[in-house]
Amino acid sequence: MPGGLLTDLYELNMAVSYLRRGMTGPATFSLFARRLPPDRGFLIAAGLEDCLAFLEQFSFTADDLAWLSEAQGFADQDLAALRELRFTGEVWAVPEGTAVFAGEPLVEVTAPAAEAQLAETVLLNHVTVQTSIATKAARCVLAAAGAELVDFSFRRTQGTETGLAAARASAIAGFAATSNTEAARRYGLPAAGTMAHSFIEAFGSETKAFTAFAEDFPGKTTFLVDTYDTVEGVRTAIEVARTLSLPGPAAVRLDSGDLGALAVTARRMLDEAGLPGARIVASGGLDEYAIASLVARGAPIDAYGVGTKMGTSADAPYLDSAYKLTEFGGRPVMKLSEGKATLPGAKQVHRGPGGDLIALRGEPAPPGHQPLLVPVMRHGTRLHPPEQLATARQRCAHDLAWLPGPAQRLRSPTPVSVAISPALSALRQRLPSRLRPPGATALP
Amino acid sequence: MPGGLLTDLYELNMAVSYLRRGMTGPATFSLFARRLPPDRGFLIAAGLEDCLAFLEQFSFTADDLAWLSEAQGFADQDLAALRELRFTGEVWAVPEGTAVFAGEPLVEVTAPAAEAQLAETVLLNHVTVQTSIATKAARCVLAAAGAELVDFSFRRTQGTETGLAAARASAIAGFAATSNTEAARRYGLPAAGTMAHSFIEAFGSETKAFTAFAEDFPGKTTFLVDTYDTVEGVRTAIEVARTLSLPGPAAVRLDSGDLGALAVTARRMLDEAGLPGARIVASGGLDEYAIASLVARGAPIDAYGVGTKMGTSADAPYLDSAYKLTEFGGRPVMKLSEGKATLPGAKQVHRGPGGDLIALRGEPAPPGHQPLLVPVMRHGTRLHPPEQLATARQRCAHDLAWLPGPAQRLRSPTPVSVAISPALSALRQRLPSRLRPPGATALP
Repeated sequence: MPGGLLTDLYELNMAVSYLRRGMTGPATFSLFARRLPPDRGFLIAAGLEDCLAFLEQFSFTADDLAWLSEAQGFADQDLAALRELRFTGEVWAVPEGTAVFAGEPLVEVTAPAAEAQLAETVLLNHVTVQTSIATKAARCVLAAAGAELVDFSFRRTQGTETGLAAARASAIAGFAATSNTEAARRYGLPAAGTMAHSFIEAFGSETKAFTAFAEDFPGKTTFLVDTYDTVEGVRTAIEVARTLSLPGPAAVRLDSGDLGALAVTARRMLDEAGLPGARIVASGGLDEYAIASLVARGAPIDAYGVGTKMGTSADAPYLDSAYKLTEFGGRPVMKLSEGKATLPGAKQVHRGPGGDLIALRGEPAPPGHQPLLVPVMRHGTRLHPPEQLATARQRCAHDLAWLPGPAQRLRSPTPVSVAISPALSALRQRLPSRLRPPGATALP
Repeated sequence: MPGGLLTDLYELNMAVSYLRRGMTGPATFSLFARRLPPDRGFLIAAGLEDCLAFLEQFSFTADDLAWLSEAQGFADQDLAALRELRFTGEVWAVPEGTAVFAGEPLVEVTAPAAEAQLAETVLLNHVTVQTSIATKAARCVLAAAGAELVDFSFRRTQGTETGLAAARASAIAGFAATSNTEAARRYGLPAAGTMAHSFIEAFGSETKAFTAFAEDFPGKTTFLVDTYDTVEGVRTAIEVARTLSLPGPAAVRLDSGDLGALAVTARRMLDEAGLPGARIVASGGLDEYAIASLVARGAPIDAYGVGTKMGTSADAPYLDSAYKLTEFGGRPVMKLSEGKATLPGAKQVHRGPGGDLIALRGEPAPPGHQPLLVPVMRHGTRLHPPEQLATARQRCAHDLAWLPGPAQRLRSPTPVSVAISPALSALRQRLPSRLRPPGATALP
């Protein structure tokens, strides 16, 4: 799908105006989160790979152009210009899996204004949803304190395409596996899954269902034990394993009720049956808060299936993300709308021991600081092949370990401090007075 | 995309077990919302069209089967069975745009268990997200009290595919237009859009930007007036219209600040300039609550651009939806898991003057009642061509008008009463005692 119409009408209107006037000088747009959602002390950047794939193949099909002519009345000269249009610009970005904070550019696009403008909608979309989900998943990883996490979100993500993105984002964040088979295939992830309640009901009894399952999948004997009564279900799982001379059920899965109390009971029953290696998997409406509470209670749960609330980032289903013009034809620009002021110029973020520093792109890094944004595309072509998911996953694990405790907190966290470089502050003050904010601004 | 792997691994595990054992008798699964999300007095059913499209083309590609063999170790006999598998079942459903309540089946699938089971994930996904968004959009329509609504959500929906679905769902709910051009093309919707703040900044002044825009789009002169200062922006819009001898700006768009107060000021300025026909469009973080508050203040706003919060259903980003086995091989079944009990048997919902009645499918409708579920697919084939979007939209308008005031309330609504037929209650009691809930259940 070349995707020329995967945008908002106003982007097309503006692109046409720019093209008609030969306003093809370079424009820089900066994509960032204006603020962190409630109860977020950091974000895990994700979505860049889809952005680059989109930019690389961006063009208008003959059908797109026909619709613009017939339904929108675009003139022939405009259609001719759009027919030739490709993304020819440069992109700097924070690699996926990096921890970032409010105001920090995640992606910066420098291209002729029409090209950069037409990309706005899809770039915002990919980064907003994938960063939201990767962040939520990373919070589950922090809460699980070493227990394994499995993505169970596919049935309730907002769209099936987003289910694939959620499996990938949660893998970046540190999840061990996904139930989503298309995602497992596409991204090379471990697939996990056992049986549904309907399977027990179809066989009419847990004994029959567990026996059939163990026959069919001798290496995957995780039994779902809560269809009728969880304690009875655990007992049946143990009996079936004995009858079939299995080394034991590989695991029992608890999917309802008081998971903490049931896990204690199930653990005791399994241990008493001489099955200390049988694992306990818990699922059912879990999120980082529920996991943290189970961990705090010492629930003997080995793995958590985390679904809907992670896959929709339910308590923060979007970011206050923005894609803002910061430079046009070599001239820095900024927006002053109430509560939405922006920082001018192409930028870099330097990460150091005392926190992050947002600077103009050309500024040297302060001693001991590392730049977060790297060039990823020039002349519309990627500078590197798509990054391995494992690389982003390692980066995320590193950054989660680096995050100070107050930024990791699940409730009322304190993000790492983000400062503005003197040169960037000075540029802001040098802008014509009508482009200067009247007083203090929302941005750091 | 034939979609065989667009599912969870456990569906494939279960399908294989059913196929190996010749368990191909008809199974009925019922898709419903266990409860309404907070502050929801109704749901608007949506997503059926995508479900039917999925079922019609369901199959496994050679690549799917190769992955199941190599990565999952599926046996040759299982791969052979999956290779032949198509959806051959029957579907009953509530048409899109219908108002529904907790516990009411939205979709019922009757098919050999393997087929019905493999469809679970995608069917839940489509219905959950599209119903969530259509419901949120319908609440905006109720709040707007006749003002026009435009879908601005594409940049922050959870995925680009979901952006298209959100445009469609909001059109069903009664939105007048969308900014999303691919959705406008695909679904035949009016496209709407003007300019971004970046456009003003690129030209360096509102006068230049408005003038250029009016030259390029003489029929679409909606000017965005809040880039620097909203009142000055309205003044500039009026001046540019005068200078160019336009009949006036078609509209001014307010995107930040106190929208209610600014709308009053803008209205007065436009009226004093002799432009009573110039419209006022408001946008910026709006949802049904903000719209209701602006309407209650009497803000003279003609149209609202509604984005992120509608397109993600931000305060209720998912439904507690379920797809549950209710009948297997002619035998009614039910699940008893704590808080997740189900109603047995294939069902119908009858809507009458006193409320809704969930009944077994064969039961006659009580006098004055209309059935909500209709057959839509038999032998894996649709019974009718895809429904026109306008039909679903009319149905939704009818149902919104029908909803009693307490169900329409935005906060703490009271849904319409939903009863269980005597025959369904009796069936529940007749089930073997181990399949009966121990006491009161969560379902109506």
